[in-house]
Parts: sequence; C-alpha cells; structure tokens
Amino acid sequence: MYRAFGALLLVAAPVAALADPLPSWNETEAKAAIIGFVESVTTEGSDSYVDVNRRIAVFDNDGTLWSEQPVYFQLLYALDILKEKAAADPSILTSDVLKAGAAGDMAGVVAGGEDGLLEILNVSHANITPEAFEASAHEWLTTATHPTRDMIYAQMVYQPMLELLSYLRDEDFTTWIVSGGGIDFIRSIADEVYGIPPWQVVGSEGKTTYALSDDGVPTITKEGGLTFLDDKEGKPVGIMRHIGQRPIFAAGNSDGDLAMLEWTTVGEGPAFGLLVHHTDAEREFAYDREGHIGVLNRGLDEAGERGWLLVDMAADWARVYPAAP
Amino acid sequence: MYRAFGALLLVAAPVAALADPLPSWNETEAKAAIIGFVESVTTEGSDSYVDVNRRIAVFDNDGTLWSEQPVYFQLLYALDILKEKAAADPSILTSDVLKAGAAGDMAGVVAGGEDGLLEILNVSHANITPEAFEASAHEWLTTATHPTRDMIYAQMVYQPMLELLSYLRDEDFTTWIVSGGGIDFIRSIADEVYGIPPWQVVGSEGKTTYALSDDGVPTITKEGGLTFLDDKEGKPVGIMRHIGQRPIFAAGNSDGDLAMLEWTTVGEGPAFGLLVHHTDAEREFAYDREGHIGVLNRGLDEAGERGWLLVDMAADWARVYPAAP
Repeated sequence: MYRAFGALLLVAAPVAALADPLPSWNETEAKAAIIGFVESVTTEGSDSYVDVNRRIAVFDNDGTLWSEQPVYFQLLYALDILKEKAAADPSILTSDVLKAGAAGDMAGVVAGGEDGLLEILNVSHANITPEAFEASAHEWLTTATHPTRDMIYAQMVYQPMLELLSYLRDEDFTTWIVSGGGIDFIRSIADEVYGIPPWQVVGSEGKTTYALSDDGVPTITKEGGLTFLDDKEGKPVGIMRHIGQRPIFAAGNSDGDLAMLEWTTVGEGPAFGLLVHHTDAEREFAYDREGHIGVLNRGLDEAGERGWLLVDMAADWARVYPAAP
Repeated sequence: MYRAFGALLLVAAPVAALADPLPSWNETEAKAAIIGFVESVTTEGSDSYVDVNRRIAVFDNDGTLWSEQPVYFQLLYALDILKEKAAADPSILTSDVLKAGAAGDMAGVVAGGEDGLLEILNVSHANITPEAFEASAHEWLTTATHPTRDMIYAQMVYQPMLELLSYLRDEDFTTWIVSGGGIDFIRSIADEVYGIPPWQVVGSEGKTTYALSDDGVPTITKEGGLTFLDDKEGKPVGIMRHIGQRPIFAAGNSDGDLAMLEWTTVGEGPAFGLLVHHTDAEREFAYDREGHIGVLNRGLDEAGERGWLLVDMAADWARVYPAAP
C-alpha cells in the first residue's frame, strides 16, 4: 500500500515540475532569476537550502501588488467617505483641509500637509470598530471604480504577482504584506485577493482601545491618529515586531521599500530582493524618479550593487491585471 | 490507486479518533468540556462548526503555559544578567534600584516601582539586537535552575497544556501566545517548547529602531522602555493588532487575562474560555486571590456566569511537568 502510494507520488512529481508556476511572466531573465532562487532554497541537499520555517517572503502592497496611481487607493477611499459624510452633514467640514477634501481639491489637500491628511483619514478611520471599518473598506474596494481606468479597485492587482505569491506558498513559504498603508484597510481584502490571512498583514497603525460597554459588550475602537508608520526604516521594525524573523525574500517598488530589502538581503545566507519598475504607461502607469507616489530613485541606483532584481513591467510581464479592463 | 488510498484513510481515521488527545488530563468534567467544544466546532454539519481560518486559539504564558512563582521568570532572568554585569563592572549600578537588584534585595526592587523595574529590565533588554537578546534568553532558560524547584526553567512548562496546544493544532487551530511578558523573551523559546513560531507570539514591547551601520550592515536595536503593555485591556488590543481577528478559544490564569477572555467569548458564535486555577501546592504552587503574581480574583467570581472553565490543577491534571523534577 505504502509502496503503491510512493509510486503515485513519483509519477505526480514530474508533472507538477513541468507546469509553469509563473505563466503571466515572459520568458526573460527576471522569471529565470526568481525560479532559480526558489529552486535553490527549496532543493534538499543544495548548499543554499533553507528550512521551511525560515521561508518568509514579504511584499509591499501599493505599487507592488496593486496599482497606486494617481494616488494611493486608501486616500481615494478616505476622500469618498469624506464626501459621502459631508453630503449628509456639511457641519463636519470644520477645517480648510476637510473642505478641500470634500470638494475634491487635491491642491488644498496637499497644502494641509501630514496633519491635514490625518484629519481626512480620521473621518473614515476613527471612532469606528475594526469590523465596521473593514466592512466599509471591503465594500468600497469591490464596488467603486478607479478614476482613469474602467476597473473596480480590487481588480487592479497584478496577475504576475498573484502567481508569484501562489508559487512561493506552493514551495512552503509564508507570504506577508508589509505596507505603508493602513493595516486594517489591507486586511479587509487581503485574504480574498491575495490569499493572505489578516495576521500576515503588517501595516501602519493608529491607536486602538478596548472597553466593555455599559451593557457588557466588549468593543475595540479605532481611535485614529498614527502610532506606527510602516514605511522606510519602519518596515524592518514592523517585520521584526510581527514576524520576529528576518525574511529571505522581499519585493517592493519604491524607495520606501529599500530598508526592507536591505534588512532581507544584506547579510549571511541566501536571500532575494525584487523591485517592480513601473515602465508600462500603456497597460498600467509609467513612473519612477519623479513625482509624489512610489518614487524609485535610490532603488534604481543601488539595485545593481545590491543584486536586487529590477522587474521591467513592460518587458517582463505578459499581462498586468487578471482581467483586461 | 486512488481507491486504495481512500481505503487506507478509512482504516486510519478510527484509530486516530480512539487515541486520547489529552493523556495528562484526568477524566473529569474539564477534559470532557474541552473535547466537547473542539469536536463541536470541527464536526462538519454541526450547528457550531467553525471554518478552519477562524480557528484561532490564544494562550497567556506565565501561569498558563509555564510556572510564574516566586516571580515571573523574565524578572529572574533580568536580575541574573544584572548581577553578572555588575560583577564584571560595578560602575553600572548607578541607582538604588539597580543596587538592590544586583544584591538580590527584592524589597528594594519592589520599592523602585514600575520605573525601577524598567531600569532593571533595560540592563538586559536594551542596547542589544533582538538576535543577541534571544540567544541570551534562550541560553538562560535552558541552563539556569529555578530557585526552589530543582528544575531548568524551560522544563517548567505544563504537560497538559502542551497536549492541549498539540490537540488544537491537530484540529487545524492556529495557536498563539498572548502574554504580558516581553515578546522577544518568549520568542526565544516558543518554537522549541510550545511548537509556536515567533510570529504567533504577542507580548509586551519596547522601542526598536532600524539603521544601517557605517559599514553598511543593517541592524535592529532594542532601545528599551515599554511602548506596549500586553496585559489586561492591552491583550485584546494586541490580539487585533497581530492577529486581526477575534479568537474562538482563550486560556489564561489571572485577572490580567479577563479582557482577553471577554473579547474571545462574549458575543456571537461558539467560543471557549479557560482559566488555570493554581490549586496544587504539592506539585506546583497554590495561589489565587492574594499576592503580587497571577492574582485571580474577579476571574473566580465571574467564571460561572461567563461560562468559563476553571481548571483545577490538582484535580484535573494527572501530571504537571513533562518530567518529574
């Protein structure tokens, strides 16, 4: 019986090996580099073999797993909720930046600086339970439409990266999101679109409190503000707080991800760093050194010496989104 | 071939079902209640069936998974390191509380209050990388001997709780530690003694920073202090931050765990709360309403109305530690 089952496995294995784990990646050096790394750390007896419990892969979200233009989706969500609430009760617009946000005046929003941004975010992100917030964010992500692409936000994930996540999990990696975006915003959709459970999402955090209500109901409340910014040097800190272990694979797309890539790849043992380079104005967006979202400057300069893979979206990806718009 | 394999499974299943998952638990109501709950949430078609991705079980550590008398092991570790460092360099004893700690004067340590305690903790817990700290904590936990029991600290885990952790994992729960103790201290040993990976440990936290050294080496440093206290109302907050989902099983032993038990069990859906009651002066320690460690006061009063299981260590456990001292 055991022998028969063993024979079945021997038959099945070569079939699995022949299947292409990354069908939406073109046959370029990028794809070969990824597969080469994964095979080297998962082949028993290989010098660079890595035990299953150390196969940690971390991914930035905005611009790495889904689009981030013209601005982060989370800000578009916050502005939509602000507009909706202001339409019902204009008295909530108690400051210039809230008025600018509700009027869709992006110059006015930018003029408010970081404090103004937090004020706008707090309208949708504070004085609410995580459960109610996630329901609202999920509803928006699965129904609202992107301003310039005729797509629902939740459809604007990168098919090649979904395949990479699945491929790594099939090879016994755990896959994590490590994002500058809000942890609860991403958790609202991460399992559904990425197959990543809420506890494998690391992100920026606000204050939360726990209390029993007068009638004995336990409640967590998002109080707003920003208690942890999971960006730049915050990313390795967030990784160590949530994962407690250095990853061996890190993927990002902007200079905000460089500390995470350094922490993952500079040091002993096999490790892989990947930067998605947005080169595809036709199918997605083209941007790198300039602008206010997803700036990739140092990353382009340092990728070579660091040995990080620069993924050329236009050349390396056979498709961008799961469905054509 | 498939049919043969199916038959093998059919033969194997009843054997597994007959094996006792909790052999170190006596045949009392406590054991029956635990097994009854686990079977009810894992039996497909049952009214109280719970999907695998919602089977989250959280465990306090001190007094729930291992002993906590005469004081928390982590404080004994901090005092041992303080003594060791002071022996090498007495000039580090810059305050009364540090002098008291190095002299083993517990009244002097207590007189220093929370600030004094942090001062003592910082000697071993600050200005160190998490990797070096965990190596030091692991070394101590696996070699130092308890002051009144002739046992290594890492041996002072509760065999019945180890079996409960394994049983829950066999039933597709994920098992988490949610402790008032330091997150890195517990992570140093959690995988080895509990089978719990570092990312499933939630605990109190100090400040950590990331930096590239002058020669380009990325380093995380524990800066000391207390930025998050994972105790009392902090436990549900820590759960939502790290897990992002309400558990369905929570185990604790003191009033510091009650908010976690409330958050887990008060509300809709099946859930289980368990309190370990330290009733066994012979084999472990007996304490509840009095003292400064592991006080269980409200918990004894409220367990009945909340439907929480009170585990009577003396009556419900056939053995306490994996090996006799």
